[in-house]
Amino acid sequence: MARTATIQYNRTKLYGYGRPHTLGGAGQTGGRGGTRTSDVMGAIRAKVAGRALGAGDRLPSIRSLAATMGVSPSTVVEAYDRLAAQGLIRARRGSGFYVSPTATPPLALAAVEPRRDRAVDPFWVSRQSLDADAAVPKPGCGWLPPHWMPDAALRRAVRTLARADASLLTDYGGTRGALALRRLLLTRLAEDAIEASADQLMLTGSGTQATDLVCRFLLRPGDTVLVDDPCYFNFRALLRAHQAKIVGVPYTPSGPDVARFEEILAGERPRLYITNSALHNPTAASLSLPTAHRLLTAAAAHDLTIIEDDIFGDFEPERSPRLAALDGLTRVIRIGSFSKTLSASVRCGYIAARADWIEHLVDLQVATGFGGPSPVATEIIATVLAGGSYRKHMDELRQKLTRARREVARKLQAVGIEPWLMPRGGFFLWCRLAGGQDSTQVARAALREDVVLAPGNVFSVSQTAASFLRFNVAQMSDPRMWDVMRRALKTS
Amino acid sequence: MARTATIQYNRTKLYGYGRPHTLGGAGQTGGRGGTRTSDVMGAIRAKVAGRALGAGDRLPSIRSLAATMGVSPSTVVEAYDRLAAQGLIRARRGSGFYVSPTATPPLALAAVEPRRDRAVDPFWVSRQSLDADAAVPKPGCGWLPPHWMPDAALRRAVRTLARADASLLTDYGGTRGALALRRLLLTRLAEDAIEASADQLMLTGSGTQATDLVCRFLLRPGDTVLVDDPCYFNFRALLRAHQAKIVGVPYTPSGPDVARFEEILAGERPRLYITNSALHNPTAASLSLPTAHRLLTAAAAHDLTIIEDDIFGDFEPERSPRLAALDGLTRVIRIGSFSKTLSASVRCGYIAARADWIEHLVDLQVATGFGGPSPVATEIIATVLAGGSYRKHMDELRQKLTRARREVARKLQAVGIEPWLMPRGGFFLWCRLAGGQDSTQVARAALREDVVLAPGNVFSVSQTAASFLRFNVAQMSDPRMWDVMRRALKTS
Repeated sequence: MARTATIQYNRTKLYGYGRPHTLGGAGQTGGRGGTRTSDVMGAIRAKVAGRALGAGDRLPSIRSLAATMGVSPSTVVEAYDRLAAQGLIRARRGSGFYVSPTATPPLALAAVEPRRDRAVDPFWVSRQSLDADAAVPKPGCGWLPPHWMPDAALRRAVRTLARADASLLTDYGGTRGALALRRLLLTRLAEDAIEASADQLMLTGSGTQATDLVCRFLLRPGDTVLVDDPCYFNFRALLRAHQAKIVGVPYTPSGPDVARFEEILAGERPRLYITNSALHNPTAASLSLPTAHRLLTAAAAHDLTIIEDDIFGDFEPERSPRLAALDGLTRVIRIGSFSKTLSASVRCGYIAARADWIEHLVDLQVATGFGGPSPVATEIIATVLAGGSYRKHMDELRQKLTRARREVARKLQAVGIEPWLMPRGGFFLWCRLAGGQDSTQVARAALREDVVLAPGNVFSVSQTAASFLRFNVAQMSDPRMWDVMRRALKTS
Repeated sequence: MARTATIQYNRTKLYGYGRPHTLGGAGQTGGRGGTRTSDVMGAIRAKVAGRALGAGDRLPSIRSLAATMGVSPSTVVEAYDRLAAQGLIRARRGSGFYVSPTATPPLALAAVEPRRDRAVDPFWVSRQSLDADAAVPKPGCGWLPPHWMPDAALRRAVRTLARADASLLTDYGGTRGALALRRLLLTRLAEDAIEASADQLMLTGSGTQATDLVCRFLLRPGDTVLVDDPCYFNFRALLRAHQAKIVGVPYTPSGPDVARFEEILAGERPRLYITNSALHNPTAASLSLPTAHRLLTAAAAHDLTIIEDDIFGDFEPERSPRLAALDGLTRVIRIGSFSKTLSASVRCGYIAARADWIEHLVDLQVATGFGGPSPVATEIIATVLAGGSYRKHMDELRQKLTRARREVARKLQAVGIEPWLMPRGGFFLWCRLAGGQDSTQVARAALREDVVLAPGNVFSVSQTAASFLRFNVAQMSDPRMWDVMRRALKTS
C-alpha cells in the first residue's frame, strides 16, 4: 500500500494545492530559511493535490528529498513538521511520514455557517453578529469596529508581553487574577466613589462570566430575577441557562419605573436584579440619583441583591450615579470589563462585592474554570491601562461617538426611524419604527441581504418592543447597509 | 483645601515613594522620552511620600511644572496620565489633577494571602498551588515549571500576534472559536483515530470550562455522576458546584474496576461518567483496550454519557486506547486543552461531541461567556502548533520526564514513599506512605514550611486514600523541599 513517491521539483506546481488560507500566522513563524521550507512544503502539497501521493503513501525520506531538492535535511524536517501540524501528513514514530487519510480531497473542514432559520430569540443576535463574516455590516451588534479600538496601544502591550517572564507566559496565575490589574481597578472604582478593599475584588474571564458566576452563587432553579424591559438580550439568555423565572420592569429615561419596581419586589420577591446604571443597554439612558436612592431603599426593604454591570460606564462624558457607590457594595455587586473600550479579543472582567461573597466566588471560579483569567490577557490589559494612553483614547472615542450619534440619528430619521432618546454617550441608539413595521420582520429581511440588525423583542421580556430596533452608530458607515435597510423597511 | 504646591526638583528624592512593584509592564510601555517622564513621575511621588502634597491637593498646572522642571508640557501630560492610571492622582475634567484620597499612606492594596486554615478539601490544593508565591516549591501542583514549557515558541507566537489584523486583536471572534485552531484539532483527533467533522468541534476557555459546559448541558441538581476513585480533585469541586451526587469507582492500573463499574451503572443509574483514559490523574495509569470495550458496552446498556478528558494524552510515548475512538463520539464527549503542554496562561480548551450537542453547547457558551474563547489566545496556540516545533518540544519533554520520573521515584523510595505504579508517561507519581502516616497531616506540616503537597484524600470520593500523595516529578528539584518533606513525614 505504501508506495514511495519521488518528488519532481517543479516550481510551476509549487502552490497547486494552495495554502490553507485560514491557518493564521502559520506561515510567519520561525522566519529563518522560510522560503526554502515553503518550497519543500509546496512541492509536497502539489504532489498530494495532483494525486502523485495518495492517502497512506509514505513520503520520501528526509535525506533523499533534501538531496533531490538541494536543501538541507533540517529544512525538510521543518517542512514535514509543519505539514504534519497542518494535517496533510502524519508522523509514525520510527517509520517516517505518511500522507494523511484526510488529505485528499483537500481538507473539507469548512467553517460551520451560522444557522439563519433559527428563532429570533436572545441567542439570535449574538450568533448572527459573532459568526458573521467580517465584511457583513452589523448595525445590530454590541461592539465597536476594530479601527475604533486602541490598536497601537494593544500592539505595544503585546510586544511588551513577548519579553515577559516565562512564568507569566506559561503559568496559571492566581485565583483572583493579576495583582497589577486589580490595583488599577481599585483605583478606577475609587474614581466612581466606590471604595473597595483588595479582598472585595476578583478578576474573571469576561463581564458575562462575572455575571454568570454571581448567578451560580446566588440563584437556584426557579428563583425569580428582575431585569429591565428592555434589557441586554444576553441577560435573558444567561438567566434561561440558570432556569430562573425572569420578570421585567419597564425602563424609563431615568432608570426603571420605580413604582413598578416596588410593586414587583413586594409581589414577586425576586432574589436578584440585573441592570446597567450608566448608558443602559439597549436604551443608552442612565439612572438618575433620586431613582437610584429609591431603588436601593426598596431593595433593602425586600433584601434584594443587585448586579450593576458597568460595561459602558467609560463612555459617559460625566459620571452618572452608580448604585454601587450609594450602597457601598453591601447588596450591590459591581461587574465590569474592557471588551467595549479596549479589546473583546483579550478578554477579562471583574467582580467587586462583599469580601465574604468574593471568597465563595473565587472557589466557584476555581471549580468551574480552574484559576482566574488568563495572565497573558490581564497583563495586556494592565499594560494598556497603565500606559496613560487609555484616557486619551477614551476622550477621542467619546468625541467621535458624539458626532456619529448625531449623524446616524439624522439619517435614521430620514428613513422613518426615530430615536427614543438622544443618549449622553455610548454607541447605541434605541429607535422606534415610525412606519409601524414589525422589527423582527425587518431584521429577517435585512439578514437575507447580509445585514445584521437587532430587533426590539430580543431585548424585551414582555415582548412589547416589536416596533423598536437597537442601532450601533459606529457600525453604520457602509452605504450598502442603508440601501438594504430601506428595502427591508418597505417590504416588512 | 486645595493647596497648590511647587515641586522642588531634587534627584535624591526621586524614588522616595518607590514604584509600585507589581504594576507589571507599566514602566516599559511608551519607551520614547521615558526617562524624563519618569523624572516627573518621581518628583510627584516624592512630594506625596514626603507629605508636601496631601490627599485632595491640586497638582501644579502642566505648563508651570514643565517650566520648573525644564521639560516639555507633553512630558508632564504623559507623567500625569501614568500617575493617574496608577491611582496616585486623579484627573477632574476641566480642572486639572489632584492627589487621590487613597494616595497617602502608600496604596495599601496588599495581595490577598491564600488562607491556610481552610479545610483540606478539593479546593485546598487548587488554591494553595495557584496562589502560592513563585518561590514556593509545589510538588503537589498539576503543571510543569515555566522552564519546561515551550517558552521560545510562545514568544515567537506573541511577536507574530503583535502584527496581526486589528480585528483579531479587538473583536470577539466566532462562537465556536478560531477556524485555524479547529482545523489543527480535527487533524490531531484523526491521529487518535477520532474522525470528527467540523460541526462536532468547538473551542472553549479552558479544559475545565469545557467540562463545566457539558455538565451544565447534561446535569440537573441531584443527578448522579460517576468518577474514578481516586480522580482529579477538581472534578469533585466542579460536580459539587453542579449539586451532583458523586459516586466513585475504584481505579486499577488498567482503568476503573469493570465489575464495580457495571454494578454501579445497574444500581445507581448515573447520568455521566468523567474520566481520563490516558495517564489518568492522579495515578498516571492508562486504560487498557479490553477495559475500554467493557466500559462502553456497559455504558450503552445503561445509556450513560462519558466525558473523556484527554488533557495528558500528549505525554504518552505511544497512544493508549481512547473511549472516544472506540465509540466514535456517540456517547463519549472528548475534552482537551493545551494547559499542560503549551501554556496555562494562554488558555483554551475544546469539546468534540455529537453535532446536535455541540449546537446546544455553543448556545450555552454564548449565554454564559458571550462568544468563544479569546481569539488572541487561540491565535497564539494555533501559531505554536502550526509552527512544527511543538512535536520536537513534546519529544524532548517526554524524554526529560522519563528521566525525572526514575530519579524522583528513587529519591521518594529512599524516604519511605512508594510509587503505586511506574507510569508510562506524564509527570505524576501516585505514591503510598510506607510509614503509615496520614498524608493530610503531612501536607499540613509541609505547608507550614511553605511546601505545597497534594494529599490523597482530596482525590478520593470514598476518603480511602489517606496514605497516598500525588507528586509532580517536574516540581521536585529544590533540595529544601526534600528537607521539609523529611521533617513533615517524621512529625506526622
